[in-house]
Amino acid sequence: MPRVVVDAMGGDFAPEEMVRAVSQVSLESDIQMVLVGHAEQIQALLDAGEYNPELISVRHCGSVIGMSEDPREAIRAKKDASISVAARMVALGEADAMVSAGNTGACVLAAAKHWKLLAGIRKAALASVFPRQTEYEGQDQLGLLLDVGATIRCEAVELAQFGVMGSAYARCISKVASPRVGLLNMGAEANKGGDVLVEANRLLAGLPAIGFIGNVEGHDVATGHADVVVAEGLLGNVVLKLLEGVAEVASSLANNAAHESWRWRFGMAMLSPGIERMRTLADFQTYGGAPILGFEHVCIKAHGRSRSGAIGNAIKVSAKAVRDGIIPDIAQKIAELR
Amino acid sequence: MPRVVVDAMGGDFAPEEMVRAVSQVSLESDIQMVLVGHAEQIQALLDAGEYNPELISVRHCGSVIGMSEDPREAIRAKKDASISVAARMVALGEADAMVSAGNTGACVLAAAKHWKLLAGIRKAALASVFPRQTEYEGQDQLGLLLDVGATIRCEAVELAQFGVMGSAYARCISKVASPRVGLLNMGAEANKGGDVLVEANRLLAGLPAIGFIGNVEGHDVATGHADVVVAEGLLGNVVLKLLEGVAEVASSLANNAAHESWRWRFGMAMLSPGIERMRTLADFQTYGGAPILGFEHVCIKAHGRSRSGAIGNAIKVSAKAVRDGIIPDIAQKIAELR
Repeated sequence: MPRVVVDAMGGDFAPEEMVRAVSQVSLESDIQMVLVGHAEQIQALLDAGEYNPELISVRHCGSVIGMSEDPREAIRAKKDASISVAARMVALGEADAMVSAGNTGACVLAAAKHWKLLAGIRKAALASVFPRQTEYEGQDQLGLLLDVGATIRCEAVELAQFGVMGSAYARCISKVASPRVGLLNMGAEANKGGDVLVEANRLLAGLPAIGFIGNVEGHDVATGHADVVVAEGLLGNVVLKLLEGVAEVASSLANNAAHESWRWRFGMAMLSPGIERMRTLADFQTYGGAPILGFEHVCIKAHGRSRSGAIGNAIKVSAKAVRDGIIPDIAQKIAELR
Repeated sequence: MPRVVVDAMGGDFAPEEMVRAVSQVSLESDIQMVLVGHAEQIQALLDAGEYNPELISVRHCGSVIGMSEDPREAIRAKKDASISVAARMVALGEADAMVSAGNTGACVLAAAKHWKLLAGIRKAALASVFPRQTEYEGQDQLGLLLDVGATIRCEAVELAQFGVMGSAYARCISKVASPRVGLLNMGAEANKGGDVLVEANRLLAGLPAIGFIGNVEGHDVATGHADVVVAEGLLGNVVLKLLEGVAEVASSLANNAAHESWRWRFGMAMLSPGIERMRTLADFQTYGGAPILGFEHVCIKAHGRSRSGAIGNAIKVSAKAVRDGIIPDIAQKIAELR
């Protein structure tokens, strides 16, 4: 039975949606959960609904790091912030995984402060799912992109490690047995992109177990050629936010339909199921969750806007990652890379 | 009267569409044009239509570099390729600007071989227009992104120079008097993105004349926050190709409507004017053209798929760039940067 510690205080709709998610998961799974935050408030919220008390415990802590606080300063100043207490509990073996919808930087820094990187891992990476077209039958509707901002620039071996970690995580969350891993580059040929990318390509090509398909270009991100896209943080961050921006523009075009001609309004009404799907895609980050990979423990960062359904999903994914042994799997493949 | 040399043999529809474009422009402007390529073939195509012989001359050359040839090898081997002859003519003062729809790499290398970089310029950049939402009244429907692949990694001063060049070109092609220049980064704050981007931000902020608005993030590319987006080649190339990929996916969804339910087909028919606009956007590169900036002369690289309308547009833009004195303008601002 995996034990998951949940930061009850982080996120735009905390603690209400966090508690609701934990209550719901307690009724439909055997996952042990600890809610970290203001104990009295949490208990009142629990008691307002239905839950399985055998699977839920509460750990009180005195403070919380706000969504717009400077992460570095806040982690230093607030020793008893919910995210720090959660990370410490995992470090002490009181839980196996951590889920938070709070301040992303604080989440990464709390893990970095209290957890060890896996042996051989040079840098942790923040991964995110993203919507794209699918290329083959049964392919997941969401791809995985890493790093999206835990790093800025990377060395070749760091990128290769991202490929290993992304491959292991994608195998865990998607139905695809062998996710395709691609290295984001400015050309498909192995000799493109400068020394670092050429060397990263060579290292990844030497690991047959991870399903490396070579370099992928910008358009391949949209068409779904790779299931896992590897990039240094600066590049991955820009790509992820560009996809968010495009989805938001498309969604706002759909919303503005009411102000257009009757012809446009009528057409949009006809297309409403498709439009609805587009709106859902525009909100893709709220239901995917973003794992922080490279540490000895599992951490899923849910989007700040997440509602209880998305939080519940993140809790189940973190438990599955523990059950599937994603950490030892990554550790073993990293050892092969060295 | 600006004199523009046109590579008649480069592009998917060369020489037919190149000759058609030149003929058309000769009837509606005072631009002097030289068609470089197979003289007999060009003359036959000219004579098949209407044109103003006072504005058009033909320069014969013996070979052409194919769209999929290795640019470096081809430029070395084919001394009399149309693109090389065109670049030499500009270098010798026989023309003021060059337009080609051929092999992009060959175009950049021909300019690099026969032209000098402007005093102080460290690296040439390839710029491209891209479609985005507009944020303010009168803003251009297309933004400008550079570099999109002439470089891989860049130093801070090189990025700042891209900002200067992009600003000058955007003022020339768009109706906006003061285009907004943004530095593509993983955070809006000036201290984000590592040493190179922090220093590039500082350099650009020191040039009030170019309209620098600070760092922009991935989503700002889609929403139109900046008119000129500055990035090193690897990042710019991935962003441009991602936008192409998204536009292609959207366009293919529209094309596949015939296979969907009656409801979907009917809705799509109602939306057909909007869909058509989306298809046009998916083809944005064919009507925008991509300037190669940083040399002592003007070069516009039209997309390989360009038809005569897009080529004609590129010819007019190159002539306007010469008339507006874009080269001396860039030279002066670069001097201020040093």
